[in-house]
Amino acid sequence: DAIERSIRARVPPMLTDLYQFTMAYAYWNSGRHNEPAVFELFFRENPFGGGFSLFSGVHDCLLFLRNFRFTEEDVEYLRSVLPPTTNPAFFQFLRELDCSGVTLRAVPEATVVFARVPLMEVDGPLAVVQLLETSLLCLVNYASLVCSNAARFRLAAGPDRKLLELGLRRAQGPDGGLTASRYTHIGGFDMTSNVQAGFLFGIPVAGTMAHSYVTSFSSLEEVWPQTLLPADGEKDPIDLISLTKGLLGRLCELLGAEPAKIHEGELAAFLSYAIAYPGNFLPVIDSYSVSCSGLLNFCAVAMALIELGHQPRGVRLDSGDLCRQSVEVRRVFKHCAKQFSVPVFESLIIVGTNNISEQSMMELSKKENEINVVGVGTHLVTCTRQPSLGCVYKLVEVRGSPRMKFSEDPEKSTVPGKKAVYRLLDSEGHPLMDLLCLSEEPPPLAGQTLRCYPLGQEAHLAVTPTQVTCLRQEVFAKGQVRNWSWWMWELDSQLSRSRPGM
Amino acid sequence: DAIERSIRARVPPMLTDLYQFTMAYAYWNSGRHNEPAVFELFFRENPFGGGFSLFSGVHDCLLFLRNFRFTEEDVEYLRSVLPPTTNPAFFQFLRELDCSGVTLRAVPEATVVFARVPLMEVDGPLAVVQLLETSLLCLVNYASLVCSNAARFRLAAGPDRKLLELGLRRAQGPDGGLTASRYTHIGGFDMTSNVQAGFLFGIPVAGTMAHSYVTSFSSLEEVWPQTLLPADGEKDPIDLISLTKGLLGRLCELLGAEPAKIHEGELAAFLSYAIAYPGNFLPVIDSYSVSCSGLLNFCAVAMALIELGHQPRGVRLDSGDLCRQSVEVRRVFKHCAKQFSVPVFESLIIVGTNNISEQSMMELSKKENEINVVGVGTHLVTCTRQPSLGCVYKLVEVRGSPRMKFSEDPEKSTVPGKKAVYRLLDSEGHPLMDLLCLSEEPPPLAGQTLRCYPLGQEAHLAVTPTQVTCLRQEVFAKGQVRNWSWWMWELDSQLSRSRPGM
Repeated sequence: DAIERSIRARVPPMLTDLYQFTMAYAYWNSGRHNEPAVFELFFRENPFGGGFSLFSGVHDCLLFLRNFRFTEEDVEYLRSVLPPTTNPAFFQFLRELDCSGVTLRAVPEATVVFARVPLMEVDGPLAVVQLLETSLLCLVNYASLVCSNAARFRLAAGPDRKLLELGLRRAQGPDGGLTASRYTHIGGFDMTSNVQAGFLFGIPVAGTMAHSYVTSFSSLEEVWPQTLLPADGEKDPIDLISLTKGLLGRLCELLGAEPAKIHEGELAAFLSYAIAYPGNFLPVIDSYSVSCSGLLNFCAVAMALIELGHQPRGVRLDSGDLCRQSVEVRRVFKHCAKQFSVPVFESLIIVGTNNISEQSMMELSKKENEINVVGVGTHLVTCTRQPSLGCVYKLVEVRGSPRMKFSEDPEKSTVPGKKAVYRLLDSEGHPLMDLLCLSEEPPPLAGQTLRCYPLGQEAHLAVTPTQVTCLRQEVFAKGQVRNWSWWMWELDSQLSRSRPGM
Repeated sequence: DAIERSIRARVPPMLTDLYQFTMAYAYWNSGRHNEPAVFELFFRENPFGGGFSLFSGVHDCLLFLRNFRFTEEDVEYLRSVLPPTTNPAFFQFLRELDCSGVTLRAVPEATVVFARVPLMEVDGPLAVVQLLETSLLCLVNYASLVCSNAARFRLAAGPDRKLLELGLRRAQGPDGGLTASRYTHIGGFDMTSNVQAGFLFGIPVAGTMAHSYVTSFSSLEEVWPQTLLPADGEKDPIDLISLTKGLLGRLCELLGAEPAKIHEGELAAFLSYAIAYPGNFLPVIDSYSVSCSGLLNFCAVAMALIELGHQPRGVRLDSGDLCRQSVEVRRVFKHCAKQFSVPVFESLIIVGTNNISEQSMMELSKKENEINVVGVGTHLVTCTRQPSLGCVYKLVEVRGSPRMKFSEDPEKSTVPGKKAVYRLLDSEGHPLMDLLCLSEEPPPLAGQTLRCYPLGQEAHLAVTPTQVTCLRQEVFAKGQVRNWSWWMWELDSQLSRSRPGM
């Protein structure tokens, strides 16, 4: 399908660090390339100073593994960059390589996970699993980071506010933008502005107009056609300009506004857009002045639409104090609803977009405001507070023997051995802890008390789990994606849990 | 070619915000879609609290414009997300759209530029130039940011140290990594670890081994073959293990090191790698302990290689205090050079990689150290200090009339009118200022005194430039890339200027 084609094109097996190839050759040259080896993927600290992460990008990893093959062109290039002494038979070996010998165990897409827990285990021939390192890290690092960031914005926003991702123009290039749209949706955003993300991943898309649309109009003469058909099927088109002008006069009187301050170009832009999309009218109202021009123009056009049986949707605010302005806008909407008997005005929505950060989202939840939809771009997709997650991929076993890295930095040392990872739950189904055992140890049993040794602590703990689950599942083996249906089910159920009421 | 295919695949015209399409329809519906319009692209503040930026991504923009066409599949998707009332003829209009009516004026790739100067001018039919907004921003924003970041690392490192980019695993997905490799090279990095970037863009690639390679070995029994042919064409292979063991004994004596602390697995890894790549021996020496094990193992294997006529290259340090360790390593190298009469040891290189930031690069330039090559990943590609540039795209003219946006935030207001941009140079060829004029105004002349009004300041200045250059050139018109040869020349000359002595 389109996603798989896109992964094949975007993540060729050459998208990796050169040292993977120099190491693969050295393994091959010493006859060790097929020795069974186990790598673990994990991160050392939860991002954003927080207590959790959502692990993501697994689906892309599966597609990458399924399509892992070197072309003749790839191999020719490698021949040109590796030393001329390289045995030519190595390039034939690369040409025939695939992931049929690789087994991947991973936590399901978008699982809530914690630092230092091995989230993926890659088991297979030493040379192959080494070659996979950089590409797998690249696929999960940013996906997990931005998904976790989205979840934090969702937590800050509360369950009811709609969240719109609009970071494409500020992302790390085209694919950074696509990845952001995809994984912020998984992390709890409702919609994206990114059309290609809608096309590829089925994410709901949203958006109506920019300031340039408004400023491109300067007078009512630019509005064409000037008429609109009523929604009830009536055949006679109505002159929307005259109708709106009349309403605008009454509005100015009611609200004590100065007609001279109303920008005619803005009114022309709103009319023109309303005529094009009578059921999708949601203009940006701060191109000149919200209170002196944009809000009045919106109300007049919206009331004209309502008179013709259409349903306006709302407004967008993109500068200044969004909270204060939204309260003022809502007040005017309610006043109009009553004074002009337009109950539709009670349910208009207010969209806010202005460099929103997690911090300002939290403030939004505390301050009085009337914003229904928040659009977030830069801070969401660039993860300003911490722009990288820092997943690593470490060798833990070769030929059945554990492997460990020491280091000049003690925290960079690794925990050796092939492991099993269990999530222990309490009687209410809440997670108590993630338990790492050697894979050959017997699994913990529900109802039985365990002695555990928290990482980095001296003391041990006694824990009695009510329920024990395996955190990871075998999702790729013998060249095939496995447990696919389970996978999708798990993702859906997580999503419904993480986004109540939406 | 491959880059153009890749742009077509990565940046379809659908990689844009939905509101571009809703606006395009509203323009089309009112018959305004072909009105001539001019947009400007600029950023409001220099990144990283600095005084300049390198503008990049222009080449990708040209390829994007040349390939801008909607497929039937694209249009079908748009039909499904735009309101059902949308006139079907609009989709036919989209199907036939291309950039043959668009003219792009831009500063050359990787030009040093400043805040608030219009760097690109996009001139063409209103609906088309509106549709281009998000994709153009996406292509230049991160490219310029990471190129500028690389230039700052280069300035901090000084002209002589070699810089290696290795951020692929921490970038925003696969394309973020490719874009980073490409534009950090333009910004002043010498090499990348990213093989696909070498393949696509011809950037020199580098890298030898990770810790996993070292920890995958546990004993000398894993070294195979155990022999190496001398470089001079001698036919009898030499037992490298015995030779190295003898040298290691002598080294321990000389340096007063404890043989019991030397890690046999590490020695096995180094020997195995040296046998595979006798001319490319540059191991990572901190897997266990640099001073007690890694450095001794390196010196012994390197001297054995030299005895066989091969040339070892150096070591990599990846943890702890890089400066202090590099001084110690260099001291041992010099000691060996003298004691064992191996002058090659005088020219071994030391590579340092350990979470380097611009700040630590500056410290590196001040502290005593012996690091020849610095590898930079996370802080370079994620631009930690400021992970987005914030380029914007603003309408300045429609049908020959200037357009301006006011705003609730005064700094978001725009400067109206189609402009010409001149760079004024002094008698030494240094830039004095960038001058914005209306395009219809006469150009400033060399040797004539001008009165200028610095943006945001009350006072005016009198300036007499020795030389006047046009900052932007027409690079795309009538569907074709123009001034291509000039373009490439300019890029090359900038590069040679920005990277003296490398």
